[in-house]
Amino acid sequence: MSHKLLIIGSMAFDKIETPFQKSDIIMGGAANYTALSAAQFGVPTAVVSVIGGDYPTSFLRLLTQRHIDISGIEIDPQDKTFYWSARYHEDMNLRDTLDTQLNVLAHFKPVVPAAFTDAQVLMLGNLHPQIQIDVLAQMTHLPFVVLDTMNYWITHTYELLEEVISKVDMITINEQEARQLTDEYSLVKAAKRILAMGTKYVVIKKGEHGALLFHEDSAFFAPALPLSEVCDPTGAGDVFAGGIVGYLTKTNDFSFENIKNAVIHGSNLASFCIESLGAERMLSLTPEDINSRLYQFRDLTQFDIKLC
Amino acid sequence: MSHKLLIIGSMAFDKIETPFQKSDIIMGGAANYTALSAAQFGVPTAVVSVIGGDYPTSFLRLLTQRHIDISGIEIDPQDKTFYWSARYHEDMNLRDTLDTQLNVLAHFKPVVPAAFTDAQVLMLGNLHPQIQIDVLAQMTHLPFVVLDTMNYWITHTYELLEEVISKVDMITINEQEARQLTDEYSLVKAAKRILAMGTKYVVIKKGEHGALLFHEDSAFFAPALPLSEVCDPTGAGDVFAGGIVGYLTKTNDFSFENIKNAVIHGSNLASFCIESLGAERMLSLTPEDINSRLYQFRDLTQFDIKLC
Repeated sequence: MSHKLLIIGSMAFDKIETPFQKSDIIMGGAANYTALSAAQFGVPTAVVSVIGGDYPTSFLRLLTQRHIDISGIEIDPQDKTFYWSARYHEDMNLRDTLDTQLNVLAHFKPVVPAAFTDAQVLMLGNLHPQIQIDVLAQMTHLPFVVLDTMNYWITHTYELLEEVISKVDMITINEQEARQLTDEYSLVKAAKRILAMGTKYVVIKKGEHGALLFHEDSAFFAPALPLSEVCDPTGAGDVFAGGIVGYLTKTNDFSFENIKNAVIHGSNLASFCIESLGAERMLSLTPEDINSRLYQFRDLTQFDIKLC
Repeated sequence: MSHKLLIIGSMAFDKIETPFQKSDIIMGGAANYTALSAAQFGVPTAVVSVIGGDYPTSFLRLLTQRHIDISGIEIDPQDKTFYWSARYHEDMNLRDTLDTQLNVLAHFKPVVPAAFTDAQVLMLGNLHPQIQIDVLAQMTHLPFVVLDTMNYWITHTYELLEEVISKVDMITINEQEARQLTDEYSLVKAAKRILAMGTKYVVIKKGEHGALLFHEDSAFFAPALPLSEVCDPTGAGDVFAGGIVGYLTKTNDFSFENIKNAVIHGSNLASFCIESLGAERMLSLTPEDINSRLYQFRDLTQFDIKLC
């Protein structure tokens, strides 16, 4: 029996401005980025999300071509797809949201397909914590759960978010959000506070500065690959999470040692995502591309310890 | 024959404010920090610098106790020691210089002690590029040279600095300075531009985000150790350089592989420096402290590559 991955998250129309270019309206949303990333591991995967009548079938085909089950994607023909627009600064760790139109997401009631209620790994993409709880409640076997969230939910639904955090195995969160969630400036202290909320692994994303993984009293660091050109960071965090859950589903090994590898795979896949506008580069990736860059990660980080 | 290390740089009185505390007037300056760091490797070391009549012998004794040759430290009894005062932001990667009084540094003519003109490794600490050139000219055998500099010299003595860069083996530079020196925002492009100036190794320091080492077409990344408390980052860059030159002098191996280890040793020693105000923690360090933290660096970064 092969192991299964379930991804919930937004599917969106995005419009993006960087210091170097502007996009048209393109495919976006955490569920799309995460699914395209996890698809590199070839595990049975389903997406639970919602789209409007305006969402093109060509975008859905990008998922079905990769054998991703879309039966859990609700189509609301009377409403429009979630829309998000943002502008990046020269320091692309910073961006301003220009427009957010929830549309179909405002009244989304997720339904997990029966074939995936026993998935081994569940990615709870960034959505209202109540939706995340509703999905968790539909699982018939307890999966390994990875949670993503954002500043909006920390501000507006703190208690509910705390409840979700206590029920998941891992949270991925960026450094500003980790500070906001815990009122701690030090990321080490912030991670300890989040671990104390009841989750086992905390991954703090630092964009071009890499990601820190915390577990009990241990830490692990995955750098971001130094790149000459960053085209567009949109979706990098979701691709990063997709690499983690895809790799964990494939290996079905949830030890700390293997989770280190998962984080490296996530960072590796994210390094491709930022090379193009939107998800474009994710669509042309080959296993050779991925493996050759994994060797770059090894060369970037591995050394023979020699004592003083 | 044991290998020798020569360090030139400032010796200073510092006054430091952080969000948490204010120091009195304390011992500072790149030469002091670098020498105390390199001293951990027990190699014959000399410092070339200048101090005023107001510099206490108790500070000099901190060097002589560690068998550091101070015969190259000029004492100008008619003038005052270099003074520097700064205030750190909550994000301690940022600081404002409150006061700089060059004093003795304004008319410093470095003289390398005869016993160290054949040193195998030379650290050119942050000073006027002309002083750095004057020291280079006194060396009778070509050493492995590591250069540090700062924004002031990039702005005011660009051509002279370019000349020094072309003559050294390695430069350590922070990310803002790397961008200023090359007009490139991408650190990968900036490093390539600096390598093209004629140096073999470029180390870009990113503070709490670690350091990147570039050589030819390769890169290596040394993270900073994630710490609960940062007390005072003053001197961390000089201690980092001290770890590099101390380790290289001890091992006398200037291959890329060994320079990776040197950068890890530098990052390791810098992690101690920021735990106390000024250089205090550097004075109480033991080999056990250092080696146990090297193992933390290993755990933080090492993984078994597993392909996709």
